[in-house]
Amino acid sequence: MTVTIRDVARASGVHVSTVSRSFSAPHLVNQATRDRVLAAADQLGYRPNRAARALSTGRTMNLGLIVADIANPFFPPLIKAAQGHARTHDYHVFVADTDEDPATEEELIRTLAKQVDGVLLCSPRLANDTIARLAEDVPFVVVNREIEGLPCVLMDVAQGARLALEHLRGLGHTRLAYVRGPAGSWTSEQMRAAATGVPVIGPNQPTAQGGLAAAPAVADSGATGVLAYNDLVALGLIEGLAGLGVGVPGDVSVIGVDDILPGRLNRPKLTTVAMPTPAAGRAAVDLLMDEAGASITLPTSLIVRESTGEAPR
Amino acid sequence: MTVTIRDVARASGVHVSTVSRSFSAPHLVNQATRDRVLAAADQLGYRPNRAARALSTGRTMNLGLIVADIANPFFPPLIKAAQGHARTHDYHVFVADTDEDPATEEELIRTLAKQVDGVLLCSPRLANDTIARLAEDVPFVVVNREIEGLPCVLMDVAQGARLALEHLRGLGHTRLAYVRGPAGSWTSEQMRAAATGVPVIGPNQPTAQGGLAAAPAVADSGATGVLAYNDLVALGLIEGLAGLGVGVPGDVSVIGVDDILPGRLNRPKLTTVAMPTPAAGRAAVDLLMDEAGASITLPTSLIVRESTGEAPR
Repeated sequence: MTVTIRDVARASGVHVSTVSRSFSAPHLVNQATRDRVLAAADQLGYRPNRAARALSTGRTMNLGLIVADIANPFFPPLIKAAQGHARTHDYHVFVADTDEDPATEEELIRTLAKQVDGVLLCSPRLANDTIARLAEDVPFVVVNREIEGLPCVLMDVAQGARLALEHLRGLGHTRLAYVRGPAGSWTSEQMRAAATGVPVIGPNQPTAQGGLAAAPAVADSGATGVLAYNDLVALGLIEGLAGLGVGVPGDVSVIGVDDILPGRLNRPKLTTVAMPTPAAGRAAVDLLMDEAGASITLPTSLIVRESTGEAPR
Repeated sequence: MTVTIRDVARASGVHVSTVSRSFSAPHLVNQATRDRVLAAADQLGYRPNRAARALSTGRTMNLGLIVADIANPFFPPLIKAAQGHARTHDYHVFVADTDEDPATEEELIRTLAKQVDGVLLCSPRLANDTIARLAEDVPFVVVNREIEGLPCVLMDVAQGARLALEHLRGLGHTRLAYVRGPAGSWTSEQMRAAATGVPVIGPNQPTAQGGLAAAPAVADSGATGVLAYNDLVALGLIEGLAGLGVGVPGDVSVIGVDDILPGRLNRPKLTTVAMPTPAAGRAAVDLLMDEAGASITLPTSLIVRESTGEAPR
């Protein structure tokens, strides 16, 4: 039977995270405790996994964080939280942007893998098997995608989508639509699966421009209650509907996802599924630091503001 | 007399940028041209400056880009343009966020200086002399601050501020106010200097929260025409004024600076001084690549939308 970090923790009488830190950030553990942990690990024949080993070399003390689009206000709170949390472990976080392009994403992963001690990949657009292969060369955590065998930080957007659709149905809306995101988006597929029986419009670019472009199709669909892939799409959609003489929420109710700042400042203020982005950023760093971590799923919630109202009669 | 890159360009019959690239990115220049350039440089006793020399070693093929706040939508277009332009020179750009904190800024410059081939510092909060000292260790370009002896990319926000105030005066506003940005902001000082005789409110955090917090002072001031430090402050201010029963543009006209997406989606849509951020990002990379580059100033323009109107009678 494989010796786990939990066996070492039990044998040395410390918490699992202390064992992890004894390998990955030894300067954060006092000498006597670390000696006890390393002795127990040695006696049990415990070997920290590849991720923890790599981090423990402290080659660069940098982590790389790859995002799909730095211009999407969804990412900055996640980036800032990851950065602040990494700093408590003496790590710097450097951010790179793939521009929603899978080829750039692959190139950046390869480049960063050689130059940082660990990679956080957020909202990837590459295929799962490609990511799994690239992740062999460097400690790796994925955010916003579930990939077998890799530590992942997920946000329960399916639950959020269900809450959003319940809210619309509760307001009397019977003709619903889901304005989906880009092909290759795990989040979009989760939402689509949660919106059983709801007509789908798209794929769409995950931007305000994408929402703007979807407005005629939404108006033509006759839907009065719309769940959009994210807040940017929702905001662009509201803008596009206004241009077509369709009022929100008078004629159509619109719900976004993310809870970004522009949605809070917009008129009407956006009803949205809030995503726990700061918690996700911190959890991703924890998973990278701590080999004990398996994947985790964080809850989402619905914030009702002004872009949803009673169905028109 | 010092031999300059222009002398080498003249002697070898090529453009200055070709001379620069012969040193900084030799793979981008054809062999025969490069040989001619290097022979001319050798004959004239030309030495590329420290910046070009360092870049030419291609130590990491990475550039570092430091921004004051990655959550401010002002930065992403600049980051994306710098990244795309750097990629044409086979450089990756890694972004780090200082959270508007001078101490973090200094720490990140020191860290990056050892790990990248050049640093782009955007909207710094450190003092000029500190930046000049830190810039000794690495090729360095500053964006949004003029610092003696360093290549700087500036945007002519003073001209933009003058256009904005002219626009307000043209609408009949006689009671004006400038809602300034944070202490240490070069841009804010440029705007303040351009707004001669206009009462100043602040300093304020350069965020929507900063604008929200400034709303009571703006309402109390009796000003009917307001220039805000940036769009986020303007959007927060409009929000705060609405909470006080003050309508925009009915009671108060508000102009922002930057032309960020939320301002284009807002009701009312924001009148703003557009900043040439993509051009600034590209120019910053050019200055880093090309030792011939002196500082440059890019023009700004006024975009009139819905947040400004005739002065109330």
